[in-house]
Amino acid sequence: MTSDALLERRYRVLGRNSPLFYDKPLHLVRGEGVWLYDADGRRYLDAYNNVPHVGHCHPRVVAALSRQAATLNIHTRYLDENVVAYAERLTSLFDAQLSMAMFCCTGSEANELALRIARDCSGGEGIISTAWAYHGNTAAVMQVSSLFTPEDKRGPHVRTVPVMDPYRDRAGRSDEELSTAYALDVKRAIDSFSAAGVRFAGLLYCTAFSSEGLPTLPAGFMAKALAHVHAAGGFFIADEVQAGFGRLGSHMWGHQKLGVIPDIVTMGKPMGNGHPLAAVVARRELVSGFTSRNMYFNTFGGNPVSAAVGTAVLDVLEDEHLLDNAVTVGAYTLARLKRLAERHALIGDVRGAGLFFAVDFVDDRNAKTPATAQSKRLVNLMRERGVLISRIGIHDNILKIRPPMSFSQQHADLLVDTLDQAMGAL
Amino acid sequence: MTSDALLERRYRVLGRNSPLFYDKPLHLVRGEGVWLYDADGRRYLDAYNNVPHVGHCHPRVVAALSRQAATLNIHTRYLDENVVAYAERLTSLFDAQLSMAMFCCTGSEANELALRIARDCSGGEGIISTAWAYHGNTAAVMQVSSLFTPEDKRGPHVRTVPVMDPYRDRAGRSDEELSTAYALDVKRAIDSFSAAGVRFAGLLYCTAFSSEGLPTLPAGFMAKALAHVHAAGGFFIADEVQAGFGRLGSHMWGHQKLGVIPDIVTMGKPMGNGHPLAAVVARRELVSGFTSRNMYFNTFGGNPVSAAVGTAVLDVLEDEHLLDNAVTVGAYTLARLKRLAERHALIGDVRGAGLFFAVDFVDDRNAKTPATAQSKRLVNLMRERGVLISRIGIHDNILKIRPPMSFSQQHADLLVDTLDQAMGAL
Repeated sequence: MTSDALLERRYRVLGRNSPLFYDKPLHLVRGEGVWLYDADGRRYLDAYNNVPHVGHCHPRVVAALSRQAATLNIHTRYLDENVVAYAERLTSLFDAQLSMAMFCCTGSEANELALRIARDCSGGEGIISTAWAYHGNTAAVMQVSSLFTPEDKRGPHVRTVPVMDPYRDRAGRSDEELSTAYALDVKRAIDSFSAAGVRFAGLLYCTAFSSEGLPTLPAGFMAKALAHVHAAGGFFIADEVQAGFGRLGSHMWGHQKLGVIPDIVTMGKPMGNGHPLAAVVARRELVSGFTSRNMYFNTFGGNPVSAAVGTAVLDVLEDEHLLDNAVTVGAYTLARLKRLAERHALIGDVRGAGLFFAVDFVDDRNAKTPATAQSKRLVNLMRERGVLISRIGIHDNILKIRPPMSFSQQHADLLVDTLDQAMGAL
Repeated sequence: MTSDALLERRYRVLGRNSPLFYDKPLHLVRGEGVWLYDADGRRYLDAYNNVPHVGHCHPRVVAALSRQAATLNIHTRYLDENVVAYAERLTSLFDAQLSMAMFCCTGSEANELALRIARDCSGGEGIISTAWAYHGNTAAVMQVSSLFTPEDKRGPHVRTVPVMDPYRDRAGRSDEELSTAYALDVKRAIDSFSAAGVRFAGLLYCTAFSSEGLPTLPAGFMAKALAHVHAAGGFFIADEVQAGFGRLGSHMWGHQKLGVIPDIVTMGKPMGNGHPLAAVVARRELVSGFTSRNMYFNTFGGNPVSAAVGTAVLDVLEDEHLLDNAVTVGAYTLARLKRLAERHALIGDVRGAGLFFAVDFVDDRNAKTPATAQSKRLVNLMRERGVLISRIGIHDNILKIRPPMSFSQQHADLLVDTLDQAMGAL
């Protein structure tokens, strides 16, 4: 089966619009650690995927999955110690207020449930997200996912705040001024709901602002924004699908790095290292209140296999010191990427935290005009040279680099050296 | 860890409203075939669970899961032969019109996606379901799940038709008369949308009408109902989460037994034998149209592990002749249940197809008044006697019996003998 023939078969049964990466799609057959292998046996450094969080096909995670799948796999309407122990372990990673867990299977389901909880417990409908957000694929979640949903399709219960881009917005302003200005955008959205007679329910943010371009936000911004949210009776839903489970290195959760405690937290992708596992963790009174008024059950959510897999992922994160690794290798990679900017005028800004990096391509460093076409070509050139990355940002001009957490300095060198060569070939 | 202590821990971290079966919850530790084992080593005949479709922890399914999880587990934005081959195999089980697949992780996600497709492609919003339906847990799907959503919370875009109950509704009417009457209920709901200025999008039915009580519907009903649906420009979404994958024995899908071809089919629970795997299968122009206007991507949906598991389930269904088994053992079980009705006046009606049975409890065989309290006690008595079943129906008076597909005559004897004893002890 050639890759071209496989592509034709795929078009027939999955359609031509089912998303595929790269101008020439990559036909994969195997994964191990930070490496992916294509059908021709060629090896690729995976500097994009966060779902295989502790590494592709990690043997401890696979063993936990296999063992539990051979023992018991059943829904949570029976008592099972695996899910209770995992829920205890998971909630122990949060501030004491965030003491209860509800399990589901995907980040979309987690955000869907979080919206239901925020709306039910606030009595309101109005949700604020950013103007370039993606939170999932259900009807309600798509309404707050402005990246794919134009304003006229978001309905009357959604407001967006402008995408924060300190690299371009700063213009001599202090952290204090910038954070106050950004928080005022939230206040303005709340006021817009009031003016329209829509009761406010909450603010939903990815705590890495990943789709938005991974901005380095001014200190204190989030606390200021939340003061407005809570004063208006709304809840803060922290979407940790991207930032969670130590991706940012210094903290287990993005909201901890932002210095705030959310009311509701959602998590997904990295949680099960590829197994469909997601959750909502929230304040006790929100979970109790919501579930006392609404029946919620998720057949596969929190089954013993998911719990065993989730536990194994936490074990590996701890035992392999992967947060420390993200701090150390992250700092090394960031420094090397910044040095690369000295050699390539195309790089306007390099930023990131832990093992999540953004390289902002510009046509002109003074005007900071986004260099979209070059970033697209670069991503494809990198694929040809055996390194997988992608793009983010409102102009799709920002390289998205987000490897598995077992990424090493050696891998970082390969990534940056390949970037250097590929940019030279642009 | 005693079960009582575990229950307390569960209450703390998952809450008191997270659903649990039975007056005294069952603490499970192991499953194999049709058997479940509790923490005290006691064995239970599982005559309830359809998620472990080919049997709890089926070794071939576990092996396929383990092998693929150790090889490659990645999303569908890369080319992968597993998912394409599985999608081809899955769609080959449907009428040729239903030629395309979209993968997701849960039945809720499948119904959510189906509603989005039906609404997008029809240009309408109005959805009809039955007055005692359950289709999943997202905001949009809950609106059409009348079982848990009172009328005032369903919004303006949902209409329900009365629950069909031929056992009580027949009253001397012929199949022809009854099917025409039921179809007219659909027509009335469509007309109600017209009167309210709501454009019609589609009809969503569980093809076993499981929550509704597994009625034996009059021949030709569904074709008559669909004539109204299609004449009004709507689509038929067949929810095969309960009836699909051969549950009804004579056919792979419930809609085939009803003698119609849906526009959109949703499936979930049994599809991955416990692995979170679900899908939408639909007509080419609906999938192509929807995806040309809407970005849909599901991170875990259709990953190679899910595809390997789904393929193994189909292999086992075929190689172990489980549809034939459902026909044979199903007929045997149904006959034994009917003979039980001769000894217990509480049984008003026994019905079913394949390995899905309903035992309708009544206080009075002439008045057919639902015997709800007795059915609740009976389900708990059965659990005490080591057989797991549940209840369905608008009055919760109908025993729901739906064992794994490897259920044998010996298991059926144990089920019916235990029922006999438990009813004697009521």
